[in-house]
Amino acid sequence: MASKKKKSALEELEGVSSPAAFHKRKVKRVKLPSTPTFIEEIKKGNISYVSRAITLVESTHPKHRKQAREIIEACLSIPSSSTRIGITGVPGVGKSTFIETFGNFATQQGKKVAVLAIDPSSSLQKGSILGDKTRMEKLVNNPKAFIRPSPAGDSLGGVAQKTREAIIICEAAGFDFIIIETVGVGQSETAVHAMVDFFLLLKLAGSGDELQGIKRGIIEMADAIAINKADGDNLKAAKLAKIEFKRALHLYPPKKSNWVPTVTLCSALKETGIDTVWNTLENYLQHTRANGYFEEQREQQNLYWFKETIRVALHTQFYQNPFVKKALVELEAQIKAHQISPFEAAQRLLDTFYKKNGD
Amino acid sequence: MASKKKKSALEELEGVSSPAAFHKRKVKRVKLPSTPTFIEEIKKGNISYVSRAITLVESTHPKHRKQAREIIEACLSIPSSSTRIGITGVPGVGKSTFIETFGNFATQQGKKVAVLAIDPSSSLQKGSILGDKTRMEKLVNNPKAFIRPSPAGDSLGGVAQKTREAIIICEAAGFDFIIIETVGVGQSETAVHAMVDFFLLLKLAGSGDELQGIKRGIIEMADAIAINKADGDNLKAAKLAKIEFKRALHLYPPKKSNWVPTVTLCSALKETGIDTVWNTLENYLQHTRANGYFEEQREQQNLYWFKETIRVALHTQFYQNPFVKKALVELEAQIKAHQISPFEAAQRLLDTFYKKNGD
Repeated sequence: MASKKKKSALEELEGVSSPAAFHKRKVKRVKLPSTPTFIEEIKKGNISYVSRAITLVESTHPKHRKQAREIIEACLSIPSSSTRIGITGVPGVGKSTFIETFGNFATQQGKKVAVLAIDPSSSLQKGSILGDKTRMEKLVNNPKAFIRPSPAGDSLGGVAQKTREAIIICEAAGFDFIIIETVGVGQSETAVHAMVDFFLLLKLAGSGDELQGIKRGIIEMADAIAINKADGDNLKAAKLAKIEFKRALHLYPPKKSNWVPTVTLCSALKETGIDTVWNTLENYLQHTRANGYFEEQREQQNLYWFKETIRVALHTQFYQNPFVKKALVELEAQIKAHQISPFEAAQRLLDTFYKKNGD
Repeated sequence: MASKKKKSALEELEGVSSPAAFHKRKVKRVKLPSTPTFIEEIKKGNISYVSRAITLVESTHPKHRKQAREIIEACLSIPSSSTRIGITGVPGVGKSTFIETFGNFATQQGKKVAVLAIDPSSSLQKGSILGDKTRMEKLVNNPKAFIRPSPAGDSLGGVAQKTREAIIICEAAGFDFIIIETVGVGQSETAVHAMVDFFLLLKLAGSGDELQGIKRGIIEMADAIAINKADGDNLKAAKLAKIEFKRALHLYPPKKSNWVPTVTLCSALKETGIDTVWNTLENYLQHTRANGYFEEQREQQNLYWFKETIRVALHTQFYQNPFVKKALVELEAQIKAHQISPFEAAQRLLDTFYKKNGD
């Protein structure tokens, strides 16, 4: 029953040309339930309402935004003991297969699993995550699982907000595990890391992206590294890579959580090593719940998103001001020509902004 | 002659209780020369005027700020082929001795050397850099060198701006090398890195701060690492450390400059290995001037300080708004109590700001 509803939601998404068209169509066809009805049904774990609430969250229509805010606020007060898990890795590392196998493993342990994807590029290359029906087919049909593709958005900040709000709705609906999938490119890992309790990095042996991981600080963010596709002829290289990654992790000072990141081998396809990753997660949760880090991290993340949202808003308001836009071009040229110091140029641009804003 | 003037400037600084008092005293006693006189004398390399211009830059008095801005703008148009060198390292690594030895070496090669210090903590612990007369005694008395202690300031941004302006004045005065010294604590390395052409990290063998350097990204910023105090009993450990650091540097992907950072041994006290550091610097300059990175980096740095100044100003204006201050406390408590999402809280705080600002 639940799986049927999920499928139809996916079909709906695929049947339209853009998220905007999708929203429009939905609005025309369906009269929205009241907020109390939404809350009641979400609390019952009604997947259909969870899905529609997330659609509201993703909408840019003011009326929808208003109701979405009401729903989020109500959902926040519903107790949840969920675990938020971030999973990242470069394209080709086998994220979908891993999430499918891991998700099914979790449901076998009696957990309800929601999978959300964050991928700022998905609005450009539609359907890059969950684009074809065959992906995560087993998990899609698992009645204890809920899969939601990436919300569209023009900015990582916007996508991050929508994903965070989707997490809150899933938690109110009683999901035990919320898995956030991200593509290992761009800045999205940092955003995902700032919204999860446990951050898992998927790697391949000998793929040569180890250095990139260090450079971009992704290895430093990981609570665990799982080397995927460690099967058959790959096994030997995977074992060597495990030693390499352990050494790399050793370069970093102890984490604030006092947790020592682990490196494990697995094959999502052959369904081996998944139990090891599962045990790592359980150990991590036990460790961080015992020492208070779990709660502390969530609090820090909330403050981070609060400050970050303000920072982005102030930045946008400033640089989208037409007088600022005009003066900016000229001032940058003057800086380049050594006619003005960057500090003086900044002061002049700020003066422009405050003066025009005060008019 | 020049050295005498420098000495008296230092004596003046030491004879007063605070930079504010110093400025006040100076203002009362001396009628300030006109801006054209300043420019004329700075162009001649008149150390006394260079010093007084920097004092103007450091002043918070509006009249002084105005004249400082005029001087900076005029200095910007004076051609210079200077090299800006950042030197960092934890306390105890021997920065002063190194700068003294290296600075004297540079003047022996016919270069004029200015040493500026950036140390955001110096306003708290007066005289932490160049505090006692004996530090860099030989360089202080070198007529081809000019040493200026850290400008006082409440914020790193403020100190950075004053240091950047002091650089411009020194360059207009014909200094070939501008050495910016920073204490290896806090965020000041990032600021210094963003204002120099060449960034040198001083290290000690077996000091155990290698991990901190990686964690805080300092090793990644270095164009060269010099392991100081590589003499006597330390020499063996220093040689081992050299191998370790080379390995650590190897973890990072190629720099944008395409320069491969070097690790060298030196003893500033015994005056050994200084020529190797000198050769490294020469090679670096040749390399980055040839491939265009030298100019490109300076341009990027200018844009960085331009944007950073604006960011800090917008942030300060927002969080110092009395209505924002008041609402902030309440909203943070609501976030903590899970009564409001961080995004909703941010929106409310922004609404408060714009509404009250619009009144």
